[in-house]
Amino acid sequence: MKVGILGTGVVGHALGKGFITLGHEVKMGAREATNEKAAAWAKEMGPKASHGTYADAAGFGDIVVLATLGAAYAAVIAAAGPDRLKGKIVIDATNPLDFSKGMPPGLTVGHTDSGGEQVQRAAPGARVVKAFNIVGNPSMFRPDYPGGPPDMLICGNDAEAKREVTKILHDFGWPLVTDLGGIDASRYLEALTIVWVRYGAANGTWSHAFKLLKK
Amino acid sequence: MKVGILGTGVVGHALGKGFITLGHEVKMGAREATNEKAAAWAKEMGPKASHGTYADAAGFGDIVVLATLGAAYAAVIAAAGPDRLKGKIVIDATNPLDFSKGMPPGLTVGHTDSGGEQVQRAAPGARVVKAFNIVGNPSMFRPDYPGGPPDMLICGNDAEAKREVTKILHDFGWPLVTDLGGIDASRYLEALTIVWVRYGAANGTWSHAFKLLKK
Repeated sequence: MKVGILGTGVVGHALGKGFITLGHEVKMGAREATNEKAAAWAKEMGPKASHGTYADAAGFGDIVVLATLGAAYAAVIAAAGPDRLKGKIVIDATNPLDFSKGMPPGLTVGHTDSGGEQVQRAAPGARVVKAFNIVGNPSMFRPDYPGGPPDMLICGNDAEAKREVTKILHDFGWPLVTDLGGIDASRYLEALTIVWVRYGAANGTWSHAFKLLKK
Repeated sequence: MKVGILGTGVVGHALGKGFITLGHEVKMGAREATNEKAAAWAKEMGPKASHGTYADAAGFGDIVVLATLGAAYAAVIAAAGPDRLKGKIVIDATNPLDFSKGMPPGLTVGHTDSGGEQVQRAAPGARVVKAFNIVGNPSMFRPDYPGGPPDMLICGNDAEAKREVTKILHDFGWPLVTDLGGIDASRYLEALTIVWVRYGAANGTWSHAFKLLKK
């Protein structure tokens, strides 16, 4: 499978490395084709990795991962080209974090709208699936906890796309995946990230992940 | 300790029974002093239990538990009398669920406000602590899961009140309590309830509870 990653930060690195480890080809996209972080990442990852612009990565991928800062989504999708994303699965791993009032961050949008819905509207032909946004990047690939596997929660409007992303999540080491509904459920999954952040700040831990206990 | 419970539903019953089991005195308040559900509950619970109006329960309690439907909070606090709640810890176990668009419910408020903040504004002299809202009533007292104790997440503006509620939670069988900040964090804890509801609907389980896995 060919995967385009939009974003050169820690989330893009973690997910890109996961796909490479599983044998897929990954192109990391940045604003400039000469982005040094993307070039260094591709060099480190070897022959299955490459890099280019957002548009290069969007055109390359059978599936595309949005892994930018939440605030950047509009510019990144515009640069990637919504037409290049048409019909493709777009994994939205972002959160619309609002740092304008200091720490801990809030959300720039919520309740009646969400980052996931904004992404879907910005790329209306894409099959957007929210995933990976509720956990820190070190735990995104093969999470390993004494308490067993954590839960991954996803949402999106396209059932087939969610099935594909669920398979990818299984390959990534997330056997427990729950589909919470349409992309509007991003309203709750993005709020969950704030719970994750505040829990981390209160307990001085950043390796935590959600699990749903059952009887 | 004397505890006033505002509400006669399953949450009021579960929390009231928990306090009784721990040896406290509980008065369950309802709109009418003759409420049959409250009377039956008090009779079943024995000499440490009693019932009356919302005002009776608010006046009786050293601490007061708000355990009504989220939509009812304004009428219930008005009937209880904000003055009777002055200086008291008020545990807000409610969620502002919106069933107007069918199932699963959304929230009537969020992002820039929350049910917890509305409750605090309606009873400005009370020391409101959001707690117990993220779990189903069968798990509120002595939750017992093969995967270990779940996490309880609380918030509120009064640090001392949060310490007291944390002690109560420990007594209730929740050793893992995290303070997520001011009452504005209800925005995220109430959204977490929607995650809980959608997870339950997707997996056909209603006994689930959140745990934060750590390494």
